[in-house]
Amino acid sequence: MSVVTADTPAASRTAGSGRTRLSPEQRRSQLLDLGVRLLATRSLDELSIDLLAEEAGISRGLLYHYFGNKHAFHEAVVRRAADDLIAQTAPPVDGEPLERLLISVTAYVDYVEANYEGYLSLVKGAAGGNDTLREIYEEARSALTDRIFREDAQGEIIPDTAATRLVVRGWSAMTEELVLTWVQDPGGVSRRELLAVMAASLPALVEILP
Amino acid sequence: MSVVTADTPAASRTAGSGRTRLSPEQRRSQLLDLGVRLLATRSLDELSIDLLAEEAGISRGLLYHYFGNKHAFHEAVVRRAADDLIAQTAPPVDGEPLERLLISVTAYVDYVEANYEGYLSLVKGAAGGNDTLREIYEEARSALTDRIFREDAQGEIIPDTAATRLVVRGWSAMTEELVLTWVQDPGGVSRRELLAVMAASLPALVEILP
Repeated sequence: MSVVTADTPAASRTAGSGRTRLSPEQRRSQLLDLGVRLLATRSLDELSIDLLAEEAGISRGLLYHYFGNKHAFHEAVVRRAADDLIAQTAPPVDGEPLERLLISVTAYVDYVEANYEGYLSLVKGAAGGNDTLREIYEEARSALTDRIFREDAQGEIIPDTAATRLVVRGWSAMTEELVLTWVQDPGGVSRRELLAVMAASLPALVEILP
Repeated sequence: MSVVTADTPAASRTAGSGRTRLSPEQRRSQLLDLGVRLLATRSLDELSIDLLAEEAGISRGLLYHYFGNKHAFHEAVVRRAADDLIAQTAPPVDGEPLERLLISVTAYVDYVEANYEGYLSLVKGAAGGNDTLREIYEEARSALTDRIFREDAQGEIIPDTAATRLVVRGWSAMTEELVLTWVQDPGGVSRRELLAVMAASLPALVEILP
């Protein structure tokens, strides 16, 4: 049974109806989008080829044709999810550095709220020693943290030194812990407080350096 | 072959020589100390009953008598290691709050330097979904962070609120990331810079809260 519904038009066109002729690359891309949506509310262990086939309304055989095996399928979905995270948290081109940082961390909180289970399973898998997940996770983290130095090339909020690189890495681990803990249970902490700490902490930490 | 040497007198008395009559509880405790020392430079996966038997110079059968099975042995060693961490990072009773915090984080850096592999494998195992390791890790983290509020009962550096509890949790994740990254590769960051960031960051983060 396909449970692809009206609010997922891209996936419904993928569902083998033949209404739209797509290239194999486009079909694969749409299946990845569906995989990412399914991962939002599931761990990676719960995301099977069978489930994707059922949701997309196509055969398991066709999915194996696109992705090879379950491992490669998971890797492709997680890479897509990490790319989405990087794209969605891109700061605006213009504005004050701190304002742009606040917009970026707000998008990060939004992303984790919308994709909690999948994001948690990426973090856990990466930390737990799955080499592929670790690699994707580190790539995403590097993209997110390198961006801070690239976007702030004048060093307005952070000069680029070995110590500030280390601090940004620590700050990144802190924001991850803050958002994962808060989304699971805000415990009386407002969204405004969370965002204030996440954004304002970075320049505050840099200022501490001797 | 026993490689227990003169600098490990407790373990050498455990090594079945009969020179000292110990209670089963004392023998078990000494074997745990040896397990923790072995874990300092090994991951948990590399710490086997066979290795401990060889290092202690006693039979595998006797170790199974003390610990039951490999899983229970690992759990007991990791609990002991976590207890050591909590004890070694206890701040002094007297002094200024910030000075005591600095002494505590310095002891934490010392601990991770001396026990890098074992500590990393606890962190990885806990994050990766091993329930027993997760439980021990969370207990240790709670002990370390609760202590901050208990030691600072007057709220001199941190008032006890939902938001500050969340911030301390994030700070804890940050310090863990900072020390694990730095010990593996200081990359030009001095010990003084590391310690300054780790200690001074906590009051700085609390000040950010609206």
